[in-house]
Amino acid sequence: MIDLPILVDDSLFDAYDVQKARRNRGMPLEALALDTTPVGMHYLLAHFDIPIFDPDTWSLGITGHVKKPLTFNLEQLRRFPRMSQIVTIECAGNGRTHIEPRPPGNPWGYDGVSTSIWSGVSLQLALNEAEILKSARSVVFSGADFGERLGRTEYYKRALSLEEAASDDMLLAFEMSGRPLEPQQGAPLRLVAPGWYGMAHVKWLTGIELIDHEFDGPQHEAYRIKQSEDELGEPVTKMKVRSLMIPPGYPENSHRHRLLEPGLVTLQGRAWSGTAEIERVEVGINNVWAESVVEPAVADRKAWQGWTYQWGAESGEHLLRCRATDALGNTQPLVPSWNLRGLANNAVQQVAVTVR
Amino acid sequence: MIDLPILVDDSLFDAYDVQKARRNRGMPLEALALDTTPVGMHYLLAHFDIPIFDPDTWSLGITGHVKKPLTFNLEQLRRFPRMSQIVTIECAGNGRTHIEPRPPGNPWGYDGVSTSIWSGVSLQLALNEAEILKSARSVVFSGADFGERLGRTEYYKRALSLEEAASDDMLLAFEMSGRPLEPQQGAPLRLVAPGWYGMAHVKWLTGIELIDHEFDGPQHEAYRIKQSEDELGEPVTKMKVRSLMIPPGYPENSHRHRLLEPGLVTLQGRAWSGTAEIERVEVGINNVWAESVVEPAVADRKAWQGWTYQWGAESGEHLLRCRATDALGNTQPLVPSWNLRGLANNAVQQVAVTVR
Repeated sequence: MIDLPILVDDSLFDAYDVQKARRNRGMPLEALALDTTPVGMHYLLAHFDIPIFDPDTWSLGITGHVKKPLTFNLEQLRRFPRMSQIVTIECAGNGRTHIEPRPPGNPWGYDGVSTSIWSGVSLQLALNEAEILKSARSVVFSGADFGERLGRTEYYKRALSLEEAASDDMLLAFEMSGRPLEPQQGAPLRLVAPGWYGMAHVKWLTGIELIDHEFDGPQHEAYRIKQSEDELGEPVTKMKVRSLMIPPGYPENSHRHRLLEPGLVTLQGRAWSGTAEIERVEVGINNVWAESVVEPAVADRKAWQGWTYQWGAESGEHLLRCRATDALGNTQPLVPSWNLRGLANNAVQQVAVTVR
Repeated sequence: MIDLPILVDDSLFDAYDVQKARRNRGMPLEALALDTTPVGMHYLLAHFDIPIFDPDTWSLGITGHVKKPLTFNLEQLRRFPRMSQIVTIECAGNGRTHIEPRPPGNPWGYDGVSTSIWSGVSLQLALNEAEILKSARSVVFSGADFGERLGRTEYYKRALSLEEAASDDMLLAFEMSGRPLEPQQGAPLRLVAPGWYGMAHVKWLTGIELIDHEFDGPQHEAYRIKQSEDELGEPVTKMKVRSLMIPPGYPENSHRHRLLEPGLVTLQGRAWSGTAEIERVEVGINNVWAESVVEPAVADRKAWQGWTYQWGAESGEHLLRCRATDALGNTQPLVPSWNLRGLANNAVQQVAVTVR
C-alpha cells in the first residue's frame, strides 16, 4: 500500500468559485506536450472585467519622475526594434485547491501556467526615451482593468523597483504567437516580466509612472505570503521551481481519473523556475523516485524545459509524481505549506492512475 | 420591491465540478461587445482529453455506404473550393447552474456560447466525392477524443440523418478566424453544423461513416431532454431562442456583483435562435419590459444579432433581464424548466446591479 497524499480537495465550493473558474481558465495539461501554448489554451486570470480597447485610440503615457513625459500610440511603439522571447508565466495562486484548508481566491488546480512567444518593445528602450530622473525609485504599471475589491474601487496596478525594471528582458508586448494580443491577454499592450509570477505581468497597460518612493498599492498587499491578516508577510516575486506531468492514459469523463493499459508508457512534462535553470526532474512511481531525462534550457531560462521518463506500467493503482530541482538547489516540497491567500504553492503534482 | 428570481445557484460544488469549469471555459460576457469571438475567448467543452495531432499525418476517412470510400489529408481538403461562414455555437448545457435542483454536468453559467468565422470545405462536396449509396440513412462523425463514461470506453461520435447532413451550410472546418484550428477547437478538422447546439459540431474529426440505419451512440443518449432515466426523452437538436446582455458597470472582485453610476447607460448584447431570425429583444428593468433596438440578421441567420437599449439608471438595486423572440414566435421563458441533464435551458439571463 502506498502512502497516498491528498489528491483532490474535499472541501466544497460555491457558485462564485465556479464562476471564477469558468472565467479564469487553466491550461489543459495535455498542452504540456507543446513547446508553446496555443493562444486559446493559455491560462488566464483577470481580476475584474476584460477591457476591450479600440487599438486606434489607445495610448500609453510614461509620466512622473522623467525628464520628458511621453505618450505612445501603437504605431509609435511598433517603430522601435522588435524584441521577441519565449516566456513561461505561472499564476501565483496556481495549486491553490491542493492546499488544506483551502484559501480563498481563484480555485486553481495545477493548471495556471503556460508558455508563449511574446513580442514587442524593450521596456528599457521605452523608459530611456522618457529619460528617467535620478529621483525615481519605482516604476508603476497601470492596467485598464477596474473594479471594487474589499470595499474600494481600483485600477489594477503593480510596480517594479527601478532595479527590477532595468532587467534587459522586461518586455512591453503587443503580440503573442505572432499575432496582435487578444483582449483576454491584455490587448493592446501588456508587460511581460520573465521569471515573475503572473501578477507582475500587468495587462491592458495604459500608463507607466516613475515615482520617487516604494509603491504600496492594493495588488501588492494582495500578493504577500502570510499566516494571518495582521502579519506583514513576504511579497510574492519570482516563480518557485516546479514541474508538471501530462496525466497519462485516458480520462474517466466525470472525475477525470486516469486509466491506462499495462506496458511501456512515456511520461512527459515540463519544469521551470523563475531564478535558475532546471537541473533535474525526478519521477516518483508510488514511493520510488528515479531520474527523468531533462531537455537543456532554451531561450535563456525564460521558458519551461521538457522532461521524459519511460515507465513500465503494471496492473494496479499507482500514484505518479514529479519533482524538479533547479541549478540553485531549490527543490519542490512533497506537501504544500499553507498560507492565508494560498500563494506560491509549488508542491509536487500528484496523478492517480489505474493500470488495467 | 421587485420579484427577484434565483440569481445564483446556492447549491454546492465539489472539486470535480471546479476542475470541469477550469477546463471548459465560458466566454466572458464582455466579449458580447464583439461581432465575433477571439479564438482565446471562445467557449470550450471537451468531454475527454484534447487530442493533439500532427497535421501532416492526420487523415479523414469517408467510409460505409458509399460507392468510393475515400481518405483525405489536409492538403487534399484545402484544394476544394473554400467555404467560410460566421456561426454562433452554444453548448446544450449552457445555463445549467441556473436550474434548480442543479443537474449534473459541466457547471455553465450563461457563458457557454460564442461566434466565430469558420472556414473549410462544404460537407456536401466531400460526401459527393465518395458517392453516397441509396442505402445510406445516417452520417456518423467520429472524433479522436476518447475516454471512459458510465463504465464504457468510447470515442466521441455523433450522427446526422442524411437529410440533416444535406443542409448546404454544413461545413468541415479547418480554420477559425483565418488561422488553422487550435487544438482545443478540434484541430485539424471539425464539423460546424449551423443552428445546432454544440454537441453536433464534432471536433477532432477522423472519420465519417455512412450507415443504413439510425445511429444510437452514447452521445445521442446523453443529449436527450427527459425527466427520469427510464424515459426515452426528446433529442436535443437546434439552439432555442436566447439573448444575453453584457453585465453593465464594473464588478466587485469576489462575487462579480455589478456596480454602476447613475445616468444614461447603454445596455447591449446579442440574441440568436437555431431556427429563425431574431425579431425582437425586450429588456426588463425590474418588472417593466420595453423594446430594444435589434440589428438586422446578417450571414443568413447563422450568427447572433446585436441589440441595444438606453437605460436611465437611478440609484438603487435593480434586476436587469433580456428576452428574445424569433420570427417563428418562439420566446424565452422567464424561469428555467428542469430536466435530468440540464439541457437546452434558454430561460432569461438575470443581472443584479447596484446603482450608486
